[in-house]
Amino acid sequence: MSQTPAAPPISRFPVPRLEDLPEDVRARIVAVQEKAGFVPNVFLALAHRPDEFRAFFAHHDALMLKEGGLGKGEREMIVVATSAANQCHYCVVAHGALVRVYEKKPLLADQVAINYRKADISPRQRAMLDFALKVALRSQEVDDSDFALLRQQGFSDEDAWDIAAIAAFFGMSNRLANSFDMRPNDEFYLMGRVPRQK
Amino acid sequence: MSQTPAAPPISRFPVPRLEDLPEDVRARIVAVQEKAGFVPNVFLALAHRPDEFRAFFAHHDALMLKEGGLGKGEREMIVVATSAANQCHYCVVAHGALVRVYEKKPLLADQVAINYRKADISPRQRAMLDFALKVALRSQEVDDSDFALLRQQGFSDEDAWDIAAIAAFFGMSNRLANSFDMRPNDEFYLMGRVPRQK
Amino acid sequence: MSQTPAAPPISRFPVPRLEDLPEDVRARIVAVQEKAGFVPNVFLALAHRPDEFRAFFAHHDALMLKEGGLGKGEREMIVVATSAANQCHYCVVAHGALVRVYEKKPLLADQVAINYRKADISPRQRAMLDFALKVALRSQEVDDSDFALLRQQGFSDEDAWDIAAIAAFFGMSNRLANSFDMRPNDEFYLMGRVPRQK
Amino acid sequence: MSQTPAAPPISRFPVPRLEDLPEDVRARIVAVQEKAGFVPNVFLALAHRPDEFRAFFAHHDALMLKEGGLGKGEREMIVVATSAANQCHYCVVAHGALVRVYEKKPLLADQVAINYRKADISPRQRAMLDFALKVALRSQEVDDSDFALLRQQGFSDEDAWDIAAIAAFFGMSNRLANSFDMRPNDEFYLMGRVPRQK
Amino acid sequence: MSQTPAAPPISRFPVPRLEDLPEDVRARIVAVQEKAGFVPNVFLALAHRPDEFRAFFAHHDALMLKEGGLGKGEREMIVVATSAANQCHYCVVAHGALVRVYEKKPLLADQVAINYRKADISPRQRAMLDFALKVALRSQEVDDSDFALLRQQGFSDEDAWDIAAIAAFFGMSNRLANSFDMRPNDEFYLMGRVPRQK
Amino acid sequence: MSQTPAAPPISRFPVPRLEDLPEDVRARIVAVQEKAGFVPNVFLALAHRPDEFRAFFAHHDALMLKEGGLGKGEREMIVVATSAANQCHYCVVAHGALVRVYEKKPLLADQVAINYRKADISPRQRAMLDFALKVALRSQEVDDSDFALLRQQGFSDEDAWDIAAIAAFFGMSNRLANSFDMRPNDEFYLMGRVPRQK
Repeated sequence: MSQTPAAPPISRFPVPRLEDLPEDVRARIVAVQEKAGFVPNVFLALAHRPDEFRAFFAHHDALMLKEGGLGKGEREMIVVATSAANQCHYCVVAHGALVRVYEKKPLLADQVAINYRKADISPRQRAMLDFALKVALRSQEVDDSDFALLRQQGFSDEDAWDIAAIAAFFGMSNRLANSFDMRPNDEFYLMGRVPRQK
Repeated sequence: MSQTPAAPPISRFPVPRLEDLPEDVRARIVAVQEKAGFVPNVFLALAHRPDEFRAFFAHHDALMLKEGGLGKGEREMIVVATSAANQCHYCVVAHGALVRVYEKKPLLADQVAINYRKADISPRQRAMLDFALKVALRSQEVDDSDFALLRQQGFSDEDAWDIAAIAAFFGMSNRLANSFDMRPNDEFYLMGRVPRQK
Repeated sequence: MSQTPAAPPISRFPVPRLEDLPEDVRARIVAVQEKAGFVPNVFLALAHRPDEFRAFFAHHDALMLKEGGLGKGEREMIVVATSAANQCHYCVVAHGALVRVYEKKPLLADQVAINYRKADISPRQRAMLDFALKVALRSQEVDDSDFALLRQQGFSDEDAWDIAAIAAFFGMSNRLANSFDMRPNDEFYLMGRVPRQK
Repeated sequence: MSQTPAAPPISRFPVPRLEDLPEDVRARIVAVQEKAGFVPNVFLALAHRPDEFRAFFAHHDALMLKEGGLGKGEREMIVVATSAANQCHYCVVAHGALVRVYEKKPLLADQVAINYRKADISPRQRAMLDFALKVALRSQEVDDSDFALLRQQGFSDEDAWDIAAIAAFFGMSNRLANSFDMRPNDEFYLMGRVPRQK
Repeated sequence: MSQTPAAPPISRFPVPRLEDLPEDVRARIVAVQEKAGFVPNVFLALAHRPDEFRAFFAHHDALMLKEGGLGKGEREMIVVATSAANQCHYCVVAHGALVRVYEKKPLLADQVAINYRKADISPRQRAMLDFALKVALRSQEVDDSDFALLRQQGFSDEDAWDIAAIAAFFGMSNRLANSFDMRPNDEFYLMGRVPRQK
Repeated sequence: MSQTPAAPPISRFPVPRLEDLPEDVRARIVAVQEKAGFVPNVFLALAHRPDEFRAFFAHHDALMLKEGGLGKGEREMIVVATSAANQCHYCVVAHGALVRVYEKKPLLADQVAINYRKADISPRQRAMLDFALKVALRSQEVDDSDFALLRQQGFSDEDAWDIAAIAAFFGMSNRLANSFDMRPNDEFYLMGRVPRQK
């Protein structure tokens, strides 16, 4: 995790050293490093505020790791589509990698980020993303008709909660990353693009 | 907390009964009820998902109850100004009450909600809200110049983090409340308006 | 009507003294003072230009005091909803008071101002406000289909004229109040909120 | 004023016959007909509501016929620029004719309507139209800096009132004309374009 | 083509003299001058870059002079409506002249430029312009439903290509003219307005 | 160039077979195939209209292959940034590949596409893209100040023409690709991402 002097900053705020972090925060970071092979910069950037770090990742896990009607790759598609609308560098790159990995479709993340209406997705996924974008961009207009459209595509109301909550949570994440100049790790860009690679 | 049949729903999702909630969630709700005299509906609405409830309020507390360069009333002013931009019924009404109570200015919350540029606030508070609105509405354009403007008004960079994080967190809250049709308690509307009242 | 030195200005333009005004303008102001118990600031601010004052209030009365398919409280709801879209401090506060007084619903004005789509209103009133907002924000797109929607809710075409004309008139009023920094009287904020108060 | 059957309607509302109108309204219409050679349709369309007609034209005259720092042609330029932003068919065509006639510049009205930033106008007129457009499109942001810019170009604060009030009044007029499908008279289109013509 | 000193510039870039141009470019300009009686300024302004000149006018001719389901006047209506949305001084004035000449309707171009929804056009032409404006302003949302609407009005898919391609080509032209401060010839303003004139 | 039945369509319009194309169009396509190793779909999609094909690629070459103050990779950066603003699937993917190849920076294209303000570019390139985006999104506001900003960064006025013309040309291309559902070749997505690959 030591950085060579030339590396561009990953946040406009101070980035703590691992050894200075509270034990639980450090443990979480070590765990993700062991799993991913590197520490995604969002962990280091948010560790500047341990209490906010804990709440943020607890919320993240509650929404992204749970079982339910939405697949893991579909949850990440929501992140990519709404983060692209918010022009969030970090989230589009990092979660685009997860879309590719989970869906095993190397082209899908770029398609969803650029214009999800033209992406290779099912009508059900299109309805999911239409709703997510409405939550992200004009939630004040959400009403019964939106839930009816989701039900027509087989989504339960609990799934609708998930879609809205993911769009809302990453709306927060996008604003933090944009405001803090959070930089995605270089590793994310290529992940899931080349078949034999992880 | 029992509701008369005529009361309008406080969420489009099921609202759990207190006795069915995990102990820590129930304890948190009982504590706020004892302090405020009633249970703000956001606690009941989000208790439908205990894990998300815990993360949400932990994040809330980390941002809104901490010490720092921003006063408690100023933090609430950020909530009201950004929630008005997102047209969030729940947050404008509930946090408008807190602006009145903390600032002891019965007119301030309405002014900030309608057009913060015309509100009775200091130039420092104006800069704070200008930044908060930029984070809320076009965070992709945030850059060094925004932090420079805040410093000119005496804000530290940690204060800037607070402003951005509050705007971002309530951007999430606004989207949840709008999507779930969360209804503010009637009690909030009058709170802090009449001198001798609490 | 004399002001203590500390009172914030009610307009960025000179505010005439009552005794310097033409007789008919003064009479109108005295009459409203006797009825309301205070002089709403818009009367003093616009009295700087007596001819414009006369036309403005004649137009106001023609639209707001007439009989017709719209109730007095409904007319004020149109004012509040469109003035909130234009972020007009004066009109939202002053006419919000009238919504509360006429409709005898202390919560309604805030609901309509923040997001009329979530307010406690009837489907008929929702259609009325949808049309008013379309006139306020994108009148170039108004067409037969808008009038058909109103008719479905029982509005006559004369009612439609009223809705459009109120939205248009207060669109003017909002722009004047915003440009002149017109300040609403403190009295309006609490009016109609507490049951036993007037 | 009788219309051949083929003539397209001038309003979606009933248009009264001259002989059915109150005496003062009819007199006003006859006067304008004698001066212009035809009755501009806005007089007939608004005569459907005599009280609103009286207030509207009294307001119009107070703003457009008064002496002051703005020339008659400049006042009409404000109307054309703001009405074009509101896409108001009636006002752009009718007041475009007046710009040509008063300014004796046959190209000016079209330039102002299409993109006033590229029109053959003075820096002073550019500042005037910049302010008028701000009042028309985002009056909630008007502040001291706008008045300072106008003063730099030699405008008094009373001139600033005029600019704002004209932009606001025709903002109302645009919304009425758009909502009522008001049709400009054919005569306006050519007026002032050909040198020897009136 | 020599210009008197007082003439305003027709481009912010150097305008070549006819005699300095490559033979084919000069021939094209001479031909249009013989036909129209003057040289439209776009020819002179773009001749600064002969290769771009050739491609631009070849593309123009391929779209505007071809046979097909769209009439010549209808093609020009697309240009006027989309150029008005882009506020392009040159294209609205020059192609407005062509609408008047081809359609022999002296009022039509102004109507289409100000608000095509209120213009004297057929339902078929309304659908054509609705699609053209969608291509011009939010092409990312174009989908099958747009083509279905066009087919309902009798347009073939090849006609749809034409509409989209004209809107796209003049979207380019608008951006060039706006960026280069291209000025329309005075001759265009009156063309087609007076019956006996050409 | 034969397609397996399962391949998704590359255009909503008929795609001609190479052997049915005019000789010059076919020769151009064969040449690009020999150079790139595959035929970019835009060549096949536009070949449906040979005259438009010829003009389009002549224009493309005049702007993208010329010498001048802008590097080849910089020209492609303009394409990617403006095409992302227009949400054009084809252009972001295809020209993103060219950015990576010409600039030899595998991360740059994604950065520019998501939010060019946060990309690893020089201040000069930032000014170039700011101007390109202004041309793409609000060319009606371009004025002298934009050219002054470019000159401050060392751009000549001819460079400014190039930037504007590239933004305008690809604004056309984006609208065509979006309207025709043009699909980028799978090959583009990975190109330039892996060091040893071409």
